Formats: sequence, structure tokens, C-alpha cells
Amino acid sequence: MKKLINKPDDVVKEELEGIALAYPDLVKIHYEPNFVYRADAPIKGKVGLISGGGSGHEPMHGGFVGMGMLDAACPGEVFTSPTPDQMAEAAKMVDGGAGILYIVKNYTGDVMNFEMAADMLRAEGIAVQNILIDDDVAVKDSLYTAGRRGVGTTVLAEKICGAAAEKGYDLQKLSDLCRKVNINGRSMGMALTSCIVPAAGKPTFDLGENEMEIGIGIHGEPGQERMALKPVDEITEMLALNIIEDEAYTRTVREWDFGKEEWADVELVDPPFQKGDQVLAFVNSMGGTPDIELPIIYRKLYEICEKKGLTIVRNLIGAYITSLEMQGCSITLLKMDDELIELWDAPVKTIGLRWKA
Amino acid sequence: MKKLINKPDDVVKEELEGIALAYPDLVKIHYEPNFVYRADAPIKGKVGLISGGGSGHEPMHGGFVGMGMLDAACPGEVFTSPTPDQMAEAAKMVDGGAGILYIVKNYTGDVMNFEMAADMLRAEGIAVQNILIDDDVAVKDSLYTAGRRGVGTTVLAEKICGAAAEKGYDLQKLSDLCRKVNINGRSMGMALTSCIVPAAGKPTFDLGENEMEIGIGIHGEPGQERMALKPVDEITEMLALNIIEDEAYTRTVREWDFGKEEWADVELVDPPFQKGDQVLAFVNSMGGTPDIELPIIYRKLYEICEKKGLTIVRNLIGAYITSLEMQGCSITLLKMDDELIELWDAPVKTIGLRWKA
Repeated sequence: MKKLINKPDDVVKEELEGIALAYPDLVKIHYEPNFVYRADAPIKGKVGLISGGGSGHEPMHGGFVGMGMLDAACPGEVFTSPTPDQMAEAAKMVDGGAGILYIVKNYTGDVMNFEMAADMLRAEGIAVQNILIDDDVAVKDSLYTAGRRGVGTTVLAEKICGAAAEKGYDLQKLSDLCRKVNINGRSMGMALTSCIVPAAGKPTFDLGENEMEIGIGIHGEPGQERMALKPVDEITEMLALNIIEDEAYTRTVREWDFGKEEWADVELVDPPFQKGDQVLAFVNSMGGTPDIELPIIYRKLYEICEKKGLTIVRNLIGAYITSLEMQGCSITLLKMDDELIELWDAPVKTIGLRWKA
Repeated sequence: MKKLINKPDDVVKEELEGIALAYPDLVKIHYEPNFVYRADAPIKGKVGLISGGGSGHEPMHGGFVGMGMLDAACPGEVFTSPTPDQMAEAAKMVDGGAGILYIVKNYTGDVMNFEMAADMLRAEGIAVQNILIDDDVAVKDSLYTAGRRGVGTTVLAEKICGAAAEKGYDLQKLSDLCRKVNINGRSMGMALTSCIVPAAGKPTFDLGENEMEIGIGIHGEPGQERMALKPVDEITEMLALNIIEDEAYTRTVREWDFGKEEWADVELVDPPFQKGDQVLAFVNSMGGTPDIELPIIYRKLYEICEKKGLTIVRNLIGAYITSLEMQGCSITLLKMDDELIELWDAPVKTIGLRWKA
């Protein structure tokens, strides 16, 4: 295993220590339980926006804490869900009195732990809602997931909801917005190589010298198909068509019912993309793919969107939701409207994303 | 060879096409000869700041074109110098009447071609100066270099001089500033894995499963020593001490003498770091190293600087001068003063670096 680390067990702790030293003006770190939070938190009257998940996907989520994005992020060990304790303590630290929104990627451990954290907060009188991100069209169920996995749309939801929280959206309106981003965003990824979890010390999966995995998950979970390596234009087309031609996707998720004061099943339907839609196109590196290759993917994606009648009105290209050193990429398309465009363009100042601030 | 590309020969062209589609508000692309230039160029009365070099180091240099940084960048084929033709045409495109500054990394081909381009421009009546970046303390001469190689300090020089050009520095003052950044900046890198040049199709060099190369160049040129893999704290210490304890470095470079109207040898001396110095600390990924590992390097670097009496007043952490998918890192320390700090903090809006703009 070739990594720039000391002991595998110390990776997350030492990463957080480095972040604390590097960005004291942006974030503070709380240890045991571990979380990253805005240096200027709590912000009175603002909904506290929190996400979290296993480490190894950097800059997500800790790199998205700051003005215009998250108030706090809870990193678990690599590819391991954070605990309810982390999530609840983070919420109490950034609570500005307007409630807490948890953005939860759809992995069984994350979903369960964020629900437990929400229950802990409610017992202390803090209003909290959990909104799920489940945008990966590659597979229905997966290794750690019932239903679709939460991937690239998470980054976009954190940016857009972060801007809205900054603007004064209340908890109800912010929850509705986050749900809207989720149902309008779709993603799919692929890998050329496996990642290596530090504690495991060996590749998560084996791929032959001329093989790739289409539909990979961000923890190296199996995708749709293992196949021979192809030119990137063909790879881009496979990912893009799976996304664009995906049909209405219906499933039931759990959200908190503030009227009945209980968890309730909510039916969600992702509307398919339609000719004439405006979209944000997000081309993401899985971590080990160099910058030179990403515009080549975007070039083909642009052509496909044009052919399908989708207009790319915004884009994001880079390594934002990664899988350690995995070589590969993912594509996310999010249907945009005026509200989403305005929020996307709003100032943001985090480690991983910053503009106009 | 596992890459997200189509044909190796088309990588640079298709990358540029993707950039043109993705960032029309920031940059334009000129083909044959290839260069990236500011969408709002030329800017009347501003010195045109231009750099360039082989592709494969993205986001450098094309990703640094825009407000507050470069006016144009000339990408060669992967790890291959651009031609004098590219450099001269780029200069004519962005010439705002106040002259051109070429920032040149010290590689034999780049130095020669930028000198030829400068001569071509002068024949057309355009004032131009070439300032060399030679900051790599690892080796004296190298595969493609007489003297020290130009590496991480290039990124910092492009940011700082870009801000100064925006502020109205004239060609003489901007040249002096760029030279000052170069002599006060020192870098060193290391690799865990080789990169693969697309046209070659195989690793540039071989490293054993438990080996690393200390002092690597950004094209995979040999460094100081190949040795067994060590914990990152030890690696960071090796790089940092080579930089911090480097003695005064004296060499002769060629610059244009505007009085005598001829190329002249100029003796430069890099002053060693001293207790009490303020520095910018730049931790750079070679491309394939994931984000989670970089703060761990910064954490140790911070401790070493503190112990050596250097105060880190600014930092930059990420993949900015890369070597395709190489896993590894480099460290750059730049001695700062009030002028450099103010210019570093100034607004910038490029693909690769953007803040407050």
C-alpha cells in the first residue's frame, strides 16, 4: 500500500489536525466526537446545515464547511459512517435556533445514524429534518444500500441549500429545496482502478489491466458491469445515457412529520429529463484521475446533452466527491430552474469551493 | 495504460476543446498554434503575463488564465515544450501595449523557445522580458535542465505577478517582482508511483512496491534518492529540511537588457531562509494523491516550520502543478513580505484558483 500517511488508524485524526492548522479562519475542529464546523458558528436565526459520512471522499464533506455551504460536517473513519453522537454534538455546536437540516447520503449506516441523531436532538427540543440524497442511477440496491446510493448530487445539494440557508430559508423551505435538488439530480460513475482503504491495506476490488467497472460506487461497491476499457467518448456516452434516459424513479423515504411528531414514509418520484431542460453538468474525478482528462469528458458530455435537447447552464469540473486514490470519474446532471441557478451562483467560501466571497 | 482519453495524439486538443466549452466566460482557446487566453484580453495598458510549458501539469498553466493571474498560457504536447510560434502568437493576442512578461520554468526546451519567441516579438516592436523560475532544490542539473528545475514556485509567481499586473505594475517592476518571488521560493517533490505519458503508453520509470523517489521532477525525472517507503512525517521532514536548510544558491540566468538591447547574463542569489521569516507554505499533490493525505503533510510541515522559526502566514494545499496521475507530493516555501502578502490576497478568478472575484 503506497500512501502518504503515518499509521492507518491515525489518518482521519491527523487529517483533521492538518485542516485545523491550515484553515483557522474558515473552520474549527472538535475532537471526540470528531466534527468540522464553521469558525463563525452558531449563526443566530439561520438553519444549521449539516452533512457527514465516511472519510475518503474529500473534499466532501469537511471541505464544504463555511460561508454559503455547510455549518458542520461529521467525518467517520474511512468509508465508515459517523456515529449519532458526532452528528448530535455537531448540531448542538452550530444550532442558531432555527433548526437543523441533515443532508444524508443513502447508505444504510448513515441513514440509521442520522435518524438516531435527529431523535437525540428532538429530545433536547431542537427541530431537525433529515433529507436523503439517492441519485445514483447505476444500481437499484447495493452493498451498503437499500435503493439508490447517494453520490454527486450531494455536493450540489450542499452548495445550493447552503446558499439558501444563508439567505434565510426556514427549515421547512430548506427541506423542500433539498428534496427538490435530490429528485432532480442523477449521477453515475465508473472506475479504472480500485482504491485502497488504509486499514485494509489492499485494493477493495481487482480490475484487470484492460478492464473497467461501469456504475461503480464511491466505496468501490460493484456497479452495473465490468467490461474492457473503452475510449473516453464511449464511456462518457454510457454514463450520460444512463442518466438522461433514466425513467421516473419512485421510492419511499423516511422524513420527520412535524405535524404528527413522528417519522413518516414519503413517496418521492424523480421526474425524467426532458427536451428543453436546463441542467448543471458536474464532471467529477474519483480522486486519482488527473485534471487533464476531465475536460475531455466534459467535451463529449456537452455534445450528448446538446443532441438530447438539454442545455448546460452551469458546470462543475474537478475532484469533489472522491473515493481515495481511485482512478475514474462520475457524471451528475441536475435539472436547474431560476431558483437553483441563483443559489448556485451565490457566494461561497469553503476549503473545497470558493467564489465571490 | 488506463486513462480517460480517446487517442493519445488527441489528448491536448480535446482537453482544450473541453475547456472552451466549459469556461467561455473566463477563457478563449486559439488553435494552431494552441494557446488559452483571457476572454477579456487584451487589456489596454496592462502588461501581458504569459506562461506555458508541456501539458500534463494541469491546472498549470491553462487553469491559471484569468483575472488576477495569467493573460495567456501555451500548452505543449504532454511533457513537451510549446513552440516559439505559440508563445509569440499568444503574446500578440493579449498585448495591451505595456509589454509582455514571460514566466519560464527552467527546462532547456522552454528556455530556448521562450527566448526565440521574445526575439520574434521584439522584431515587431513589442517590449518583452523573460523571467526564469528555478526553485527545485532536489538536484543541481537534471534530465532536461541545466541548473535547478522550475516547479512549485511557478504557481505562486503566476498568482502574485498576476495580481501586480492587474494593479498596474509596469514591465520593469513586474519583472523585478517575478525575480524576487523566484529567488525567495524553494521546492522539493517526491513520488510514490510513476506517471504514464499517453504517447508512451507505459510508466516513465519503475518503482518497486515498497519504494519511493525523493526529489522527483514533474516529468518523472530522477531525484536525489530512491529509498524504502516511509511514514509521511519522515517524508515531509526530508523535503522540508532540504528546503529550509538550503544554502545561498548562486547561478547565472539570461534576461533581456533593455539599455543595451541584448540578452545579458544576470547573477542571481537565492538567500537562505532565516529564523523569523514569514513564509507561504504550499503543499501540492502530484495529481494522483488524494485530498485526504495533503492536510497530514501540512500538519507536519507546520510543526517543522515552527521549530525552525519560520511563521506560515499563508498556505495553498491541493493539486496545482501535477505530473499526470503520479502519486506523490511537493512542498514549496516562499519567503513573504507585505508586498507579496497583499498581492497573494488580491482577487483572482481562473479555472484553478479563484477567490474574492
